[in-house]
Parts: sequence; structure tokens; C-alpha cells
Amino acid sequence: MTKGLKQKIIEMVAPDLEKVEIALEQNLKPNVELVKKIASHLLFSGGKRLRPLLMIHSARICGYNNEFDIVFSIIFEYLHAATLLHDDVVDEADTRRGKKAAHIKWDAPKVVLTGDFLLARALDIASKTKEPDIISVIAKITQDMSQGEIDQLDKKGKLDLSEKEYAEIIKRKTAVLIQGACKSGAILAKASKEKKDALNEYGYHLGMAFQMADDLLDYLASAKELGKNPGADMREGKLTLPLIHSLANASQKDRVWMENAITAKKFIPEQFEKLKEKLYMYKGIEYTQKKAQDHVKKAKAFLDGFHDCRSKQLLCMIADYSIERKV
Amino acid sequence: MTKGLKQKIIEMVAPDLEKVEIALEQNLKPNVELVKKIASHLLFSGGKRLRPLLMIHSARICGYNNEFDIVFSIIFEYLHAATLLHDDVVDEADTRRGKKAAHIKWDAPKVVLTGDFLLARALDIASKTKEPDIISVIAKITQDMSQGEIDQLDKKGKLDLSEKEYAEIIKRKTAVLIQGACKSGAILAKASKEKKDALNEYGYHLGMAFQMADDLLDYLASAKELGKNPGADMREGKLTLPLIHSLANASQKDRVWMENAITAKKFIPEQFEKLKEKLYMYKGIEYTQKKAQDHVKKAKAFLDGFHDCRSKQLLCMIADYSIERKV
Repeated sequence: MTKGLKQKIIEMVAPDLEKVEIALEQNLKPNVELVKKIASHLLFSGGKRLRPLLMIHSARICGYNNEFDIVFSIIFEYLHAATLLHDDVVDEADTRRGKKAAHIKWDAPKVVLTGDFLLARALDIASKTKEPDIISVIAKITQDMSQGEIDQLDKKGKLDLSEKEYAEIIKRKTAVLIQGACKSGAILAKASKEKKDALNEYGYHLGMAFQMADDLLDYLASAKELGKNPGADMREGKLTLPLIHSLANASQKDRVWMENAITAKKFIPEQFEKLKEKLYMYKGIEYTQKKAQDHVKKAKAFLDGFHDCRSKQLLCMIADYSIERKV
Repeated sequence: MTKGLKQKIIEMVAPDLEKVEIALEQNLKPNVELVKKIASHLLFSGGKRLRPLLMIHSARICGYNNEFDIVFSIIFEYLHAATLLHDDVVDEADTRRGKKAAHIKWDAPKVVLTGDFLLARALDIASKTKEPDIISVIAKITQDMSQGEIDQLDKKGKLDLSEKEYAEIIKRKTAVLIQGACKSGAILAKASKEKKDALNEYGYHLGMAFQMADDLLDYLASAKELGKNPGADMREGKLTLPLIHSLANASQKDRVWMENAITAKKFIPEQFEKLKEKLYMYKGIEYTQKKAQDHVKKAKAFLDGFHDCRSKQLLCMIADYSIERKV
């Protein structure tokens, strides 16, 4: 079932995807060879190009049929890559997409500056849309993401993180960028306020579902599927919804055991497996799945007002796939 | 003489400066308290606000007489602060403006992210100008500065750095931002292409002169005047024009001595004094002063086409002051 959905999406986006890949390469344009190397290391390591595809089809669902959607869509992949580079430095992550993280290969300062460069490239392309509202969306994304990341850093290791605080963190960390891509597509298509708002909401709920699915995969997927070891969030002291919900519902004894397992200095695979059992037992997994499904349902509902078209079908399928995916 | 010029400039800009300070405070608007603290640490530590003032008077020399020049001018102070935060992390500098550098007080990741936030704030305000060309200028500035910084990192410790390579580095490091502030003022004023180009050139030459003066001060000023120890560039392996010119003209024996002094692990004040003597002897100081003066002359010549007005007077005085200043 899942493979069928994935296959169907891939077939539908293939022609655009090819153009997106070319645009990503052609628009990088660094003057300094080292910048190209560092940026390419991450950019061309098998990203799904979800954000560009969302912008393209958010524009098309609003009737946009000009060719510039492709080049403008890469704004959101550059932005995404910029934040990943900064986040990996901030989190001191070792791997990304199964490869060494950039700051392990090069030193952190160069990676930070390459992130700045990618942000600037995104901006430069955005300025060519001649749509100040798109710039404003990008500015808000960057403000939200940088502050969200600082907030998350500040809350690292906080064992009593509330569901509300978690929602705020993942909104800033993931949803605002996906939301921004969808909204910008509508702005590019010069859509009505209603349509812009609807795609903004679609993007928000999709982003929330997407991150919750990611947080589930961090517990449930294998190292091979993830391209990094599972349980990374926990080891970094980041509490996500499966854990937050389970901690809140655990017996006193199990809560203490779980807290010890989370804060343990050493990673013991058996202990991690036992922790996963608790997440099932106290329904943290189930609860997170349910929440993610709710977001998918809401995301799709915001597409109701649009006429049937290929892009609408695709946006619906992407919403479904966001929580069915295995990577 | 210098004090007279400085005093005159201060009196002329005082009313605007007060408004700029208020705008800088009111527009920061972080949601996260920690971001405000880190950003304020640098932003309100006695900057000269050169870049905002340049934008304001570049707009006014083109006939702009609306009130928005103040709020738009702070774009360039936020940008400047963002790059200083990232640069200090990159260079592992200890002090800035006589205070502990931000990443000594807080950890580097938080400082990097605060830099991102300030960049985003600058962008958000820029989007309100509804001038895509200003966004484009900002994007080009950020691309140039981030790549310039990486290039400089890559060339650290390069003892045969050429004058051309040096010029390229300081252009990206300093001139493009000052140039961007001046050009954006002209764009805001909807000036003719000729005027935009003239102010762009004025800004470029002013920026080059300004950085050369800075590089001279790094050798000639006292620790108290600089707010940090002199000779910092040399200790970080950054060759600047006084040294580059002197090395190129030194006797074989003196060149070897100088290279040893530059690369010495330990900073010995007497050795630094002796190095300064060589910079005078081989005319590195004089040559740099002359180059900076040439840039000031060129900067002022680009103002010739403008009608006489207070802003023109001020821009001329700022050009003169850029190389006469002691801090």
C-alpha cells in the first residue's frame, strides 16, 4: 500500500523533479570553490525535494501555468539546506542522510558560512519574484526557525517538556518552512486571500504531521532506513511526543526508569528496546500516530475549496504519504 | 583637526542618531528572551551606526524626504551585527568593542542562531520597502560576505598573500555592506541610474578606505583605543596591506625575520614594536595611508554630480573622517 503511494507520487513528480535538480545545480553559483563543495555535499545527497514540489503544486493548484515555478521553488530547498547545515553544527550531529555531516568533513565555521551563503542565494532568487510578500514569508521563516532552534537548545534535557512546548518547537523547526513553501506558491500565482490562507493552513498541518512522523521514525525505524542511529533525539536530550505522552501516563516507577534511560550517558541497545516497549505500553506511539493523522486530515480538508486537478491529487497524496513513509 | 571633524559630524547626525537608536530597539522584536539578550549585547555596545547614517543620507542626497529612511536604515545595522556575530565565532575572537565577545558569554551555536535571527529581521524590514532591488542588494551583500569570510579563512596564514587578494578580501568583508547601504538609500529615493551608480561607487571607495584605516589602526592604535589588543590580525594569520607591502619590499633577512615574527606562537610586545618599525621602514604604513587617501578622494569625486546640501556635506565629511579616526 505505502509502496504503491510512494511509487505513484514519484511518477507524478518525475518530470518536475528533473527540472528542480537542474535548477538546484545551475543556481548555486558560488565564486569560491570551497563553498560549492560544502554546499553540494549536503544539497546533492538524496533529498526528497519536498519543499520545492510543494511550492510548485501550490502555485499550480491556484492556476499558475508559467515556467518560473521551478526556479522559484528551489528557494525552499536552499533555505532547507541552510538550516540543516546550521542545525547540524548546533546539534553536533555526526551524520546526515547516511553521510558524514558537513562540519565533520570541514570545520564548523566554514559550514556556518556556507549556510549563510545558501540563505543569501535563496534570498537572491526570491528577490527576482518581484513579490515582496514572498520575501516577507522567507524572513518570517528564518526568524521563526532561528528562534525555535535557540529555544530548543535552551530546553534540551528538560524532562517535563509539555505537549504544548513540543508543538511550538516542531512548528518553528519544521512546519513554518513547509507552510512558507505552500503559501509562497499561492502568492506567486497571485491567488485570492482565501486560497493563500488555505494553502498556508495545509502547509502548517502537513508540516506538523511530517515532523511527528519523523519523531516516530527516530524510535521505530532502523539505522539503515534513517541514515543515522535511531534514538538520536533522546540521546541529544530532545523529548518528542511519543516520550512526552508516555512519561505523562507512566506509573511512578516506570517514569523514573524512563527518565534514567533517557539521561543515561551510555547508549545500550537493550535499554533502548525496553524504552520502546514502554512507549507502546503507555500509548505514546499510538497517541503520536493519532495526532499526526489528525493533522493530515486537517491538511487535506483545507484543499476542499480547490477544483480537482493533478496538483490537488498530488498534494493530497503527499499529505497521506507524510505519515506512511518509512524514511 | 580630527576632533573638530568628528565633533562636527556628531552634531550634524545627532537628531537622526537618536531616532536610529530608538528604531533599533523597537524593531528587534524577538519572541525568545535569550535571543534579545544575545543580540542586544552586541547591538547596544556603542556602535557608530555608520551604515544606517550612510543609507539615510544617500537617500536624502537624492531628494528623499519621507520619514521611512530611519526605519529602513537599521536594516544595515542588523546586517552588520549579524555578520559580526558570525565572524567572531568564526575567528574565535575574545573581545569586541571592549566587551567580551558574545560567544564567550553564551555558547557559539546560540550566537550563530542569533546572527541568523538578525539577518532575518533585516530581511523582514527590507521586505517592507516593497523594493525588490533592495532585497537583491542585501542578498548580494550576504553572498559576498559569507564567501569572502570563507575565502579569508582559507587564506589564513598565507604569507605570500598578494595586494590583489587583499583588496578582494576587504571588498567582500567591508566594502560591499557599506556600498549596499549607500546604494539602497538611492533606490529608496527612486533616484536615477546615474545617481544610484554614483552612490554605489562612493560606498565602495569609502568602504575600502575604511577597512584600510582599520587595518592600520590594528598596528598603530593602543589597546584602549581599539577595545581589543593591537596586532590581532597578525596573530590570527591575517595579512593586511601594511604587512603585505613591507614584506614585498623588505630585504631577504628582514623578510625572514618578519615572517618568523608573524607566525610566532607567543605574542611578545617588544617583537611587535620591532615589527611596527619594519612596517615604517619598508613604507607599508605610508603606502596603505596613501591608498586609503586615494579611495577617499575617489569616493568624494563620485559626489560631484549632486547638488550642494547638508547630506552631501556630511557624506564628504564621513569620507574624510574614515581615515582620520583613531577608533
